[in-house]
Amino acid sequence: QVERFSVHWCQHCCLAAAAPLRLTCMAKRVAVILSGCGVYDGTEVNEASAILVHLSRAGAKVQMFAPNADQMHVVNHCDGKPAEGKRNILQESARIGRGEVTDLAKLDDTQFDAVILPGGFGVGKNLSDWAVKSKGFSVQPQVEKLIKAFHRAGKPLGMCCIAPILAAKLLPGCEVTMGHDQQCDKWPYAQSTGIVKEMGGKHVNKEVEEVHVDAKNKIVTTCAFMCNAPIHKVFDGIGLMVQETLKLA
Amino acid sequence: QVERFSVHWCQHCCLAAAAPLRLTCMAKRVAVILSGCGVYDGTEVNEASAILVHLSRAGAKVQMFAPNADQMHVVNHCDGKPAEGKRNILQESARIGRGEVTDLAKLDDTQFDAVILPGGFGVGKNLSDWAVKSKGFSVQPQVEKLIKAFHRAGKPLGMCCIAPILAAKLLPGCEVTMGHDQQCDKWPYAQSTGIVKEMGGKHVNKEVEEVHVDAKNKIVTTCAFMCNAPIHKVFDGIGLMVQETLKLA
Repeated sequence: QVERFSVHWCQHCCLAAAAPLRLTCMAKRVAVILSGCGVYDGTEVNEASAILVHLSRAGAKVQMFAPNADQMHVVNHCDGKPAEGKRNILQESARIGRGEVTDLAKLDDTQFDAVILPGGFGVGKNLSDWAVKSKGFSVQPQVEKLIKAFHRAGKPLGMCCIAPILAAKLLPGCEVTMGHDQQCDKWPYAQSTGIVKEMGGKHVNKEVEEVHVDAKNKIVTTCAFMCNAPIHKVFDGIGLMVQETLKLA
Repeated sequence: QVERFSVHWCQHCCLAAAAPLRLTCMAKRVAVILSGCGVYDGTEVNEASAILVHLSRAGAKVQMFAPNADQMHVVNHCDGKPAEGKRNILQESARIGRGEVTDLAKLDDTQFDAVILPGGFGVGKNLSDWAVKSKGFSVQPQVEKLIKAFHRAGKPLGMCCIAPILAAKLLPGCEVTMGHDQQCDKWPYAQSTGIVKEMGGKHVNKEVEEVHVDAKNKIVTTCAFMCNAPIHKVFDGIGLMVQETLKLA
């Protein structure tokens, strides 16, 4: 009986009588990796926000991170064209995180149970050079190290939208979804799914409210805004991705 | 019977057989007013995103607007200090709206059933000069015209966080909530509520998951991030604000 109790022992909780024992002890620690602020040159803000809402509701302990480096470029989000000026990925990501975003260089993977990456072109521009180099792309070294460390440790990776390209590149043979692979009004970015096969992985077609779970590699993916869908369906798909990721943690 | 049918008659729906008749005909048309992208110099992105998710789930027809003008200033969201450079409110707002944000000058209030304003310091910096002038502040002319037009037409206004200061200024004697009026860790911005009384309005204390409905003036408010609360509670409070606003439309 002593042994069984010790599983749930937590010095912090037992010292602070008012602390919610279960949440503090059992809370999954999740790192969320951002890549700027805005779908065309950074993180898709609505996907990031949905991730934060679902993690919060699940009682997870969340810390956000982003590379402390210049964005590839700045895009005018009204006309979609490149604009003047430089912006720092960490500072822009802090617009989503209300200031609470940490330099990715400081992320200690041993302190987290799972990592989640929202989409947005920042994944292919700031966390990798996929947007420029396509098939021959490489992943930003801190992000590569992180994803490989989580995978090696058997900790789950949750990803949405375009972010699964990072898993396809770094974890050969993995299975992901980025929605459907046939281009149409509903799936305007379907051709992007081709990169998964080119990297030797498997792309699985799924609807916007669904996820694909690669149980072997502990990778949970959902298409989010790869689908031209109402935002509440994107929100719900991301909710399922968060839940399935936490289940594997 | 012809008369009863004509109530739901919609030329668009009946021509397009595949269109969902009920949603297209009955959908409430809601204008969402943004003020940039980022809590410290624009719109609080998580509040805006929550509004979009709840409106989408309710089947509302949404159009986003923002002033086509320079922001008051740019804030580094890592350290909270002013930074170099100029940014356009409309272009930055389009980071939240995935490009789909219209110049506020083009808003025709007769085409909408309700208007909703998220918070963020952009409300006090870009939609008014409250952040600089406090009690003697004035509201951006397009925003003033819009809010007065909706109020005059008996159309509801939904607002969260700091946005109710605009109603307090423009609609004398109205009732709003911005959370609680006693400063503490949970209510770090409570002193801002004083402006409501100074403008001759009434501030009603409410929790983060609650709203206040001023039925006479058709104003629905919730405190959102005026409360130091987990993001899912902010999301739920905003959900109630959206629902109550749509009920009045």
